[in-house]
Amino acid sequence: MPPSPDQDILRNLGIHRVIEPRGSLPQPAWKLDNTPAAYPSETLIDVHALHIDSASFAQIASVCERDPERMRQHILGIIVQRGKLHNPVTGSGGVLIGTIHELDEAFGEMHGLAIGDTVVSLTSLSWLPLHLERIHTINLDRSEVEVTGKAILFRSNPVAKLPGDLPRNSVVAALDVAGAPSRVAALAQPGQRVTVLGAGGTAGLLTVCALRGRLGSQGEIIAIEHNEKALGDIAALNVADALVQGDATNPLELVEKVRNARAGRECLADLSINVVNVPQTELATILLTKPGGRILFFSMATSFTTAALGAEGMARQVEMHIGNGYMPDHGAVALQLLRDYPVLRAIFARRFG
Amino acid sequence: MPPSPDQDILRNLGIHRVIEPRGSLPQPAWKLDNTPAAYPSETLIDVHALHIDSASFAQIASVCERDPERMRQHILGIIVQRGKLHNPVTGSGGVLIGTIHELDEAFGEMHGLAIGDTVVSLTSLSWLPLHLERIHTINLDRSEVEVTGKAILFRSNPVAKLPGDLPRNSVVAALDVAGAPSRVAALAQPGQRVTVLGAGGTAGLLTVCALRGRLGSQGEIIAIEHNEKALGDIAALNVADALVQGDATNPLELVEKVRNARAGRECLADLSINVVNVPQTELATILLTKPGGRILFFSMATSFTTAALGAEGMARQVEMHIGNGYMPDHGAVALQLLRDYPVLRAIFARRFG
Repeated sequence: MPPSPDQDILRNLGIHRVIEPRGSLPQPAWKLDNTPAAYPSETLIDVHALHIDSASFAQIASVCERDPERMRQHILGIIVQRGKLHNPVTGSGGVLIGTIHELDEAFGEMHGLAIGDTVVSLTSLSWLPLHLERIHTINLDRSEVEVTGKAILFRSNPVAKLPGDLPRNSVVAALDVAGAPSRVAALAQPGQRVTVLGAGGTAGLLTVCALRGRLGSQGEIIAIEHNEKALGDIAALNVADALVQGDATNPLELVEKVRNARAGRECLADLSINVVNVPQTELATILLTKPGGRILFFSMATSFTTAALGAEGMARQVEMHIGNGYMPDHGAVALQLLRDYPVLRAIFARRFG
Repeated sequence: MPPSPDQDILRNLGIHRVIEPRGSLPQPAWKLDNTPAAYPSETLIDVHALHIDSASFAQIASVCERDPERMRQHILGIIVQRGKLHNPVTGSGGVLIGTIHELDEAFGEMHGLAIGDTVVSLTSLSWLPLHLERIHTINLDRSEVEVTGKAILFRSNPVAKLPGDLPRNSVVAALDVAGAPSRVAALAQPGQRVTVLGAGGTAGLLTVCALRGRLGSQGEIIAIEHNEKALGDIAALNVADALVQGDATNPLELVEKVRNARAGRECLADLSINVVNVPQTELATILLTKPGGRILFFSMATSFTTAALGAEGMARQVEMHIGNGYMPDHGAVALQLLRDYPVLRAIFARRFG
C-alpha cells in the first residue's frame, strides 16, 4: 500500500534531513544532514552558483569588511555549522542555480523536469541541505557566489526551470524576489495610490512595473529610494507618478520629503510595499499608509514587533502583511515583466550581467 | 491659519518630547523629556498603577532577585535614564492606569473623556513620558506596581476609559490584548473553519468567544492549547468545536493530533489565529492553514523571517498578517465579551483577581 498523502507530506517537507532539533522543519532547524546524495523522494542538484539574499549578503560583507577571502571562509563556516546556507544573524538564505543530477520521478512530473535541466530554487537556501566543495568567486555587486557543490530539493520545494529567452543572471535575480511583484499584482486594485519603499532595488523595480499594469491610468505610484543611481533607474522606467529620494530609516524626514514631492496632493497610500533591504524602516512605512490601508512587508529585515507595536503606538489601523515569497505562478509574473519592459531588462542586464 | 493635518501628525505622535536621538519617534527613542506638565496638544495623567509587560517584569524581578526594594530602585533607574518605563533589555513596556489631570480638548472629544476620568493607556509605556514621585507597592503576582506619578498622552495614543461595571484587573488584562478579538471579529466570515493556537491564554479566550459570535452555527472553531488547566478553561466556555491539547513548537506532532481530533473531517483552517506566547510556532500555524487561507499572527514571539520563509519553503500560498494591536474600537469588543460571557468573566476574575 502506498503511504497516505498525509504521511508523504512530512517526508516531502524534508523532516528526515533535520539533525537538530529533532521534530523541527528544515527551515527553522539549526542543522541539516547535508550528505550530498539523494535519498528516496529527493532530487539532487549540481550547484553552480548561490544568489545570496541581499540582507544576508550585506551582513556577511559587512562583518568581513568586504574582503572576499574572509567572506569565503565565513560562508563555508555557516555551511559547516548548519548544513545549509542559513545566515544565523539575518535568518535568511537566497537561491541556488544548478543542474539536475538525480531526479525524483514525482518531482520531475510536477515541474516538467529532466536530468540535466538547469533550475533555480524558489525555496530559500535556509531550507535546503547544501554541501560545498569549493567557492570559486564572490561577486560583490551581484550578491552572487560561484561554487562547486551539491544540494537537495524536497518534493514540496518550488523550483523554476531557467527559460531560454532571457539572460541567466537576470532571471535568477528576478526569481529571487518574484513573490513581490506577483503578490502585489494580486493585492493592488485599479485606481489605488501605492507607495513603494526601496523602489530602486531588484524587487522594487519589478514591483513598480507590476503595479503600473495593475493600477490603470487613475492609479498612482509613489516610488521612494535612497540611492541616487537606483532612483535614476526608476525614472528610466517611466512608470512612477512621484519619485522621492529619501531614507526610510528616518521616518519624519521622509514623510516631509514625500509631502513636498506631492505638493499639496494626498500623501498617504492605500497600499504600501516595503522592499527596503535595511532594518528600521517599519515606522516610515506605517506613517506613509493611510488608516485602513494595507502594508506588504517584503523586506527580510522587517521586525515583527517593531511593526506591531509601531502601528499600535501611532494608533494607525493598517492591515500589515508578511510578504510570502511563494506564489503559485512560480515566477511567471516576474519573468513576463522582464519580457514586457525592455528598459527593465536593460537595467537587470547592467546590474546582474 | 491652523496647521495642516500633516504637520499636526508629527506633534500628535509626540516627536517634540524626544531628547535622544533627535528625529526619532518616541517609542524607538532612547530618551524622552518627562517634564510632568502638559504642553499644547498633550494630556496629563495622574498615574496610580503600572501594569508592566510580563517579559519586562520577569526580567526586572529576576535581576533584582525578586527583592521589592531593589525592584523599586531598578524601575526608578530606568525612568531616570529614559524618561519612560521602557525596559532596555526586553524592549517592552506595559500599560498605565490613572486619572485625567489636564485634558487636551481634541483628545477629550476624540475619546469622550473628561477631567477626573480613570483611563488605561492602550499605547505601550515605551511610548509615553513618565515621571514618578514614588513607588508604593510592587505586586509580584500581577506584574503591577502602585505609584504616584505623572504621564503624558499624545493625541495619537489610544486610550480606554475604565468601565464601572467590570473589575479593574480583568479590564486591564483584557485591554492589554484587545486588538486580537477585535481584529479577528473583523476578519472572520460566517461558516469558516478557524483554528486558534494558544486558545487558553488571555488573548485566546477572548478570541474564541469573539469567533463564536461571528462564525454562526455552520462555522467551526478548532482550539489548540498546550496547558491542561487552560484547556479546561476553554472547555468551560463551551464555544469550540474541537479541543486539542498540543505543543505548537512541534508542528508535526501537532498536525497529527489535530487530524486525530477531527476523525476524518477536514483539518485545515480557512483562518488561523496565533496567540501563543512562545517562539517557534509559525510553521505549525502555516501547516494547519489551507492553501489560499489566512493567518493572523498576534504573538509578539513571532519571527517575520521564519513565517515568510516557512510559507515559501512549504510552497503554501497563505496570506499572513502581522497582528496590529490597534483597532478603532479601543477595546470595546473585548470588554463586551467579558459582559456577554459570565464564564469568561469568572476565568478572568480567577486569573487576575
